[in-house]
Amino acid sequence: MKLKKNNLTEKKIINDFLKKLNFDKKGTFNFENDAAYININNNKKKLTVTTDTISENMDFFKNDNPKSIAQKITTVNISDIFAMGAKPHSYLINLSLPSYIDKVWLNIFSNHLKKIQIKYNFYLLGGDLSKSNKLIISSTFFGYINKNLEVFQNKFNFNDDIWITGNIGESKIGLEILRKKFLPNINAQKYFVNKYLYPKPCILGPKLAKYCSSMKDISDGLLGDIKKMLDNKAGAFINVKNIPISLKSKKIILSKFDVKLENLLNAGDDYGLIIISNPKNRKKIKNISLKNKIKVSCIGKIIRKKGIYFDSPLNMDKFNEFDHFS
Amino acid sequence: MKLKKNNLTEKKIINDFLKKLNFDKKGTFNFENDAAYININNNKKKLTVTTDTISENMDFFKNDNPKSIAQKITTVNISDIFAMGAKPHSYLINLSLPSYIDKVWLNIFSNHLKKIQIKYNFYLLGGDLSKSNKLIISSTFFGYINKNLEVFQNKFNFNDDIWITGNIGESKIGLEILRKKFLPNINAQKYFVNKYLYPKPCILGPKLAKYCSSMKDISDGLLGDIKKMLDNKAGAFINVKNIPISLKSKKIILSKFDVKLENLLNAGDDYGLIIISNPKNRKKIKNISLKNKIKVSCIGKIIRKKGIYFDSPLNMDKFNEFDHFS
Repeated sequence: MKLKKNNLTEKKIINDFLKKLNFDKKGTFNFENDAAYININNNKKKLTVTTDTISENMDFFKNDNPKSIAQKITTVNISDIFAMGAKPHSYLINLSLPSYIDKVWLNIFSNHLKKIQIKYNFYLLGGDLSKSNKLIISSTFFGYINKNLEVFQNKFNFNDDIWITGNIGESKIGLEILRKKFLPNINAQKYFVNKYLYPKPCILGPKLAKYCSSMKDISDGLLGDIKKMLDNKAGAFINVKNIPISLKSKKIILSKFDVKLENLLNAGDDYGLIIISNPKNRKKIKNISLKNKIKVSCIGKIIRKKGIYFDSPLNMDKFNEFDHFS
Repeated sequence: MKLKKNNLTEKKIINDFLKKLNFDKKGTFNFENDAAYININNNKKKLTVTTDTISENMDFFKNDNPKSIAQKITTVNISDIFAMGAKPHSYLINLSLPSYIDKVWLNIFSNHLKKIQIKYNFYLLGGDLSKSNKLIISSTFFGYINKNLEVFQNKFNFNDDIWITGNIGESKIGLEILRKKFLPNINAQKYFVNKYLYPKPCILGPKLAKYCSSMKDISDGLLGDIKKMLDNKAGAFINVKNIPISLKSKKIILSKFDVKLENLLNAGDDYGLIIISNPKNRKKIKNISLKNKIKVSCIGKIIRKKGIYFDSPLNMDKFNEFDHFS
């Protein structure tokens, strides 16, 4: 752990709030070194690495619960690790802290990090503290994966299935509620706002790694991410009625609120996974879904013709017909 | 490589300026994945990791040459890697870019990164691009080291020697010249400003790793860093006349300019190494110094009494006597 300015406050931040996060791992030197060693005591594994930054006013707001901010910086990164077929191993955190950050804030933030670390089994390797006029958090995450496995984002064959995990668009509806674009009943408000403030990564990644041609997390919106995976080499044919929309979301779409299916397909922050896989793996994927109690939906397939095509119009009327997807 | 917003400009930055930096390594997926694999194809090595951030107005200025900014973000990190006894392996870069960053800037910046990568033999694994109102660059560096080696920063025995590499304070004099605190002749100006704008890490770290009790780079000033290494467990006795000050710096100190030895001992950004080592290693350390043509000076030793003590007053008069250190 590097102290940029060696004053009491920064030492205090490390001692009082961050040291508990290293889980007493030897390579972290208890954050007394400027660098750390990563020990993967297993010759059959290799490391995966990803990095992401979230900033005040862009990805969260000053008065957001520090728990939500801890949830976001870990989910954006863990989601990438899972999408690579890997499991979380450890992480570095770079905190650029404005003056309004106090002990109460740091306590809630670091306790929530600890909770997430315990849940997914990883530890803090070190990081960097600096001052800033707004809160910026960068984090680099390490995962480990079987040495012989390799998950791509843009390799596939024509006729491969396109699957997605979870439901689409709930985080976006939560954001629109926070923006006061519309206000459903209080229970629905709570449900969707929670989806936006506390996004969760989909743990199926490492379990599906063996059965996919490509995999990616949905961070920029379903259609944008599919487009990125297609990499201008092929197209996708989507069965609109198979797109997983929760019953709660359908109610929002079908009500007078101005939410369109298109908006949800282009909304980020759901952190489900897109899996492109040979049709021969269907049974295996469905079994993994059942075993882990996480919904997986086959929404279409890879076609030769470039672009994204739908089997029916993207309109709300469609939604009355398929309540069985919620 | 993660694109936060999938617009042409960011794709352009990656394709036109960053792709050349991955040196065609397979685990980077040509920056088309959200994460990368780190392959260390050697079971006898382990990974070291460090991270550091530099920001506009704090560590550099808007109009600084992009070469200087590339030099700084790599040196602060490589210096930590070398101080861990490791060699650079690869890195991630997070660029928060304000609107004034253009193609010319990116071209100079990325070309200088490439030059440094070739010099120290490491490659770009990936990173993250975002927009910002000022330029902030975070980077995470990976190094590799023999699995059985481990370099601490605060482990030593009483009577161990304290060595430092290079000369102290030249970067600080350069900064003071830039701040117009004083103006020596044009050659001296160039020399010192160059030391500040283009700091270089000391490559002796991996070579000295076997012979040191502890090692650390000088980033917060010689005395501050020694204090950090002592970790309130012991003291240091310093022979003032052995502190390596270049002839050029001595001229500045002895001239009418207001630079005191004390200022130089507390100045950062020299990126030399502090090595704490058993006296039995003296000959080995001197040989490594000779072989690599890098000055190494034994400036004192570890004592039981806590604190930092000097054998003579820290005044400029002393300096006339030992011109042989330059």
